[in-house]
Amino acid sequence: MYSFRNDYSEGAHPRVLQALADTNLVQTRGYGLDPYCTEAAALIRSLCAAPEAQVHFLVGGTQTNLVVLDSLLCSYEAVIAAHTGHINVHETGAIEATGHKVCTVLSPDGKLTPELVDPLVKGHSTEHMVLPRVVYISDTTETGTVYTKAELTALREYCDANGLLLFLDGARLGAALTSPENDMTLADLSRLTDAFYIGGTKNGALFGEALVMTAPCPHFRWHMKQRGAVFAKGRLLGIQFKALLEDGLYFDLARHANALAFRLRDGIAALGYPFPVPSPSNQQFPVLPNPVVSRLQEMGYEFEIDHAVDPGHTCIRLVTSWATPEQAVEEFLRDLAGC
Amino acid sequence: MYSFRNDYSEGAHPRVLQALADTNLVQTRGYGLDPYCTEAAALIRSLCAAPEAQVHFLVGGTQTNLVVLDSLLCSYEAVIAAHTGHINVHETGAIEATGHKVCTVLSPDGKLTPELVDPLVKGHSTEHMVLPRVVYISDTTETGTVYTKAELTALREYCDANGLLLFLDGARLGAALTSPENDMTLADLSRLTDAFYIGGTKNGALFGEALVMTAPCPHFRWHMKQRGAVFAKGRLLGIQFKALLEDGLYFDLARHANALAFRLRDGIAALGYPFPVPSPSNQQFPVLPNPVVSRLQEMGYEFEIDHAVDPGHTCIRLVTSWATPEQAVEEFLRDLAGC
Amino acid sequence: MYSFRNDYSEGAHPRVLQALADTNLVQTRGYGLDPYCTEAAALIRSLCAAPEAQVHFLVGGTQTNLVVLDSLLCSYEAVIAAHTGHINVHETGAIEATGHKVCTVLSPDGKLTPELVDPLVKGHSTEHMVLPRVVYISDTTETGTVYTKAELTALREYCDANGLLLFLDGARLGAALTSPENDMTLADLSRLTDAFYIGGTKNGALFGEALVMTAPCPHFRWHMKQRGAVFAKGRLLGIQFKALLEDGLYFDLARHANALAFRLRDGIAALGYPFPVPSPSNQQFPVLPNPVVSRLQEMGYEFEIDHAVDPGHTCIRLVTSWATPEQAVEEFLRDLAGC
Amino acid sequence: MYSFRNDYSEGAHPRVLQALADTNLVQTRGYGLDPYCTEAAALIRSLCAAPEAQVHFLVGGTQTNLVVLDSLLCSYEAVIAAHTGHINVHETGAIEATGHKVCTVLSPDGKLTPELVDPLVKGHSTEHMVLPRVVYISDTTETGTVYTKAELTALREYCDANGLLLFLDGARLGAALTSPENDMTLADLSRLTDAFYIGGTKNGALFGEALVMTAPCPHFRWHMKQRGAVFAKGRLLGIQFKALLEDGLYFDLARHANALAFRLRDGIAALGYPFPVPSPSNQQFPVLPNPVVSRLQEMGYEFEIDHAVDPGHTCIRLVTSWATPEQAVEEFLRDLAGC
Repeated sequence: MYSFRNDYSEGAHPRVLQALADTNLVQTRGYGLDPYCTEAAALIRSLCAAPEAQVHFLVGGTQTNLVVLDSLLCSYEAVIAAHTGHINVHETGAIEATGHKVCTVLSPDGKLTPELVDPLVKGHSTEHMVLPRVVYISDTTETGTVYTKAELTALREYCDANGLLLFLDGARLGAALTSPENDMTLADLSRLTDAFYIGGTKNGALFGEALVMTAPCPHFRWHMKQRGAVFAKGRLLGIQFKALLEDGLYFDLARHANALAFRLRDGIAALGYPFPVPSPSNQQFPVLPNPVVSRLQEMGYEFEIDHAVDPGHTCIRLVTSWATPEQAVEEFLRDLAGC
Repeated sequence: MYSFRNDYSEGAHPRVLQALADTNLVQTRGYGLDPYCTEAAALIRSLCAAPEAQVHFLVGGTQTNLVVLDSLLCSYEAVIAAHTGHINVHETGAIEATGHKVCTVLSPDGKLTPELVDPLVKGHSTEHMVLPRVVYISDTTETGTVYTKAELTALREYCDANGLLLFLDGARLGAALTSPENDMTLADLSRLTDAFYIGGTKNGALFGEALVMTAPCPHFRWHMKQRGAVFAKGRLLGIQFKALLEDGLYFDLARHANALAFRLRDGIAALGYPFPVPSPSNQQFPVLPNPVVSRLQEMGYEFEIDHAVDPGHTCIRLVTSWATPEQAVEEFLRDLAGC
Repeated sequence: MYSFRNDYSEGAHPRVLQALADTNLVQTRGYGLDPYCTEAAALIRSLCAAPEAQVHFLVGGTQTNLVVLDSLLCSYEAVIAAHTGHINVHETGAIEATGHKVCTVLSPDGKLTPELVDPLVKGHSTEHMVLPRVVYISDTTETGTVYTKAELTALREYCDANGLLLFLDGARLGAALTSPENDMTLADLSRLTDAFYIGGTKNGALFGEALVMTAPCPHFRWHMKQRGAVFAKGRLLGIQFKALLEDGLYFDLARHANALAFRLRDGIAALGYPFPVPSPSNQQFPVLPNPVVSRLQEMGYEFEIDHAVDPGHTCIRLVTSWATPEQAVEEFLRDLAGC
Repeated sequence: MYSFRNDYSEGAHPRVLQALADTNLVQTRGYGLDPYCTEAAALIRSLCAAPEAQVHFLVGGTQTNLVVLDSLLCSYEAVIAAHTGHINVHETGAIEATGHKVCTVLSPDGKLTPELVDPLVKGHSTEHMVLPRVVYISDTTETGTVYTKAELTALREYCDANGLLLFLDGARLGAALTSPENDMTLADLSRLTDAFYIGGTKNGALFGEALVMTAPCPHFRWHMKQRGAVFAKGRLLGIQFKALLEDGLYFDLARHANALAFRLRDGIAALGYPFPVPSPSNQQFPVLPNPVVSRLQEMGYEFEIDHAVDPGHTCIRLVTSWATPEQAVEEFLRDLAGC
């Protein structure tokens, strides 16, 4: 049975794998100082319309988050995140391990707004409290929601007015930028944030995140190395991002994942099951009766339990990816209908 | 022209790459909780004759060093290393960034002995000083030297007598275990250390280090995650180590690297150039007149400058790998002879 | 006009100062290894009925909190606190600066209960999340409330059942133990917590906190020194705590502070002003109309603004101490009546 | 018998204690925001001819070192110290606990020079190594030696030419500035360093170090608070430094300590015992035959053993202070002559 557990259950898209095979025995320098990384970085700068941006390639999301945030924060400075934010919940205190507090804001849909952030910022005014300095957001969020250009612009303006930096976790950026609710491009993200990353791990790469940094940080590679984040064969990251981005494969793959998620959503809704938090991307959160959940598990389907809604119902998470076959979705819907 | 700069200039051995391709679309759980990692770990435990050992797969050497050492050390405890140790010189303070001091010992050949370590241990006796707790060694060392079983046994006994732990950095463990000066097996290492790792990055893998830990550390995966070292598609590490270790490929590749290094060494020595620090492994450190070094560089050869010996001579580092063709070595020797 | 801003606006009780003067030119060893500290520690162990407890003297509260918590926590472990907890709000991320997350629980009155803590503990189950390990409470709390023996016993039992440690911040322990709502002794605290401290700074000493630690921690002085918390002339702390504790002065002073706080409370209440959060100790939180607050400030009274209740009313904090003269309270009440 | 163990064996100079008593019941704000600290800071700025300098009062030396260095260093930056430097040897890794490496230089007399520092600076050039950023020196050094204006000027110029900051640990600054070998004033130190401190603990105060910072650091109080170094009754520090500095008491006390040290030195030398490392300040390091050392100890004299010189001789450390009576020195010399 198919696993809808996450979007990193498989390896890489075949074209990515082929690119690795094609270059396998070429000798290059290590640590990302090779022609493939140079080309991929140039391509990304071009897609971002950000000729001055720094582009760095890292292996994973938690690693990227902790290195970026530590590079943007002084010892006594803190990062603001939604209470559901990945750095707050699912990174084993990685940010705190670099010495920084994560200040949290309750968010109804995983997104931050100036209105949500402002009381926290205003409430931190003396040397007895940390100084909030970076706003951390994710696009898509942990609940699948997506920022609009108006929303991100509002946050940017708030940050500018309050001496804050804005960092966007793009582990699922493909799904965000190809969502029907999205109206932004890579160039918009580059202009509106101080740093963001293009997640490869969850969208066709074997692994890898491409960081685009417009905030000044001349020694970012020192920060990376200090955290074990300079990858010996850095070229592997350059090769993969080049393959994903040079002709739009990255966006095609994300569109596929989203489309199948919507097919799932519509099919499940047609069976009468509710989606209390609507998601316009590749994570869907239906609420099912517990016996239905159990029957799906017994059939062998895999997915995450998000939370218990009430004694009789459970919200589950279904994730599609670039690799999800249409047939798997149809079979799931058929099986669900039979539950 | 060939690059002898290091042993991670290429991708992976073709059989490793093939294993990744063969499994590419199989769905598994993430984070190393997949059948490939389980099999690779079982294989490693078996090769190590250590049925109780923890086996974890990490992406790179600096990452492994910092996670392992932080997991073995309390806040006020320190690690002892040779002054040439990788953690002391070439990791941008990664260990200190986790809060721990690296106490250094001058070592003539990159190796540590009880005699070298003892004055430092004896000299740290009060709460005004850090408490040395782990001895960090590398095999091969940064200068290519190799530990014998007698040497490692002596260190182990010293550690036991002084309440110390012993951690062996095996980034180049393949070269060490196939060196003519080696008389140890994986099982010996497992028995004589508290933790060591089998380096994949420098010996045939795309990337990856397999950590074998006999020291008790029930929450090691928490330590990993906190440092961004839990790899989303952990399976990629399991698949690679299985391919490298299931029929001895790992050792064949290292033997090849060493053999070509010895051919280089013997050929260079035959031309009359000295090797002040003899190396029984895949890094060789000849001393050449500066004009010869320049001519080799002009021809396009790549290698590291180790240090200036005197105003007219330079010690260079030549590294061979599993991927070095015999012909590249012969050409280099011919070109050197013509300098 | 009198300042009710806090309970550390003056120096030390005259008997404490006299004890410092009497011993001023006696030579002793530094770092708390002197006879005065030895005597004071013995006295405290005796008062705590804890002959095996470690007693350490530190200079201030934030320092004590950060050293104790780092000594009790592994890298990936976290501390649980009320959202109002001092370590969460008013220590500039001191705990996070030692690498540990502070997990917060919304508390209606500043106190923690098993019921409040349990969902957080249950919700942290995998290596992707920090591992909560210590419960941090304050007595009195930041809002002046006080734990009963039943409440602390319930927390202790919860901690035991869940592998947690319990640490009590006693910066205002004098006010707590002499509160009419208190039914505990130092011996109870010693038995029911793993560590707690007897706050001197806010109750008669020039400065100083006496830590009582029953949790095993053989190298606690290493932790102290590493954080700059081993006081060169440690004897000053021993001398002060001896003077405060040898004949009950500490408790007499706290009783005085509480009594004057209750006189303030009763007098203010008699004027018709409400106390939404009742406090049985030396911090009182009346709600006053804004013009009244302004008039008091204009007269020269000093106090903290706690928070705005509504556009027309403000909750202020009034703190009394061992040094508050009865007359200052009466004058304040008279002046308030005239507002 | 007298203790020559250190210069913090007693309490405070009587005039300092009197100043504390005189102000004891005056109410002030906490945390160093009181009139006494304001006056003391103004006085120090005036003595330093540095009207723009920040002045902060901290409790002890290790605390000051760790807060200052963390405030001056980014994550990946390191501090350079003599191998004998206090931060390298005697602070239990306090600097590393804030994440920074201490890079050491072998120094024959505890002092640093551009010539000693330069190879280390030149050798740290890539992102694989920490970036040295601050030079840490002590005046007097750990071996009692003293910087001249020419020496400090040379270091300053070297730092300027290499993008480095210069921090001077003045735990024994009184002894340095009143040494016959000194030719500097507080104003010179202020002009030639980026930060230095005037040590009170070892020269007449109960405790306290006054930091003078000319490097820009707008949020230094945040750094202090985060490390538990904002002292609740900060006024105690202001009161003490005002008493010590307003009419030169600080320098008188140090002159006394030095004079008695020189009397000790000359008397011991007259008995034929050598001083391999000459010291122009209040720490003296004679080499005595082991039986003589034992006899002194048996008589009850206290002092530190510095190191064993050979199987028959020991270098001891004798420290005098503001409180050392002349008679104690004469008795010691008489007793030594009788050994």
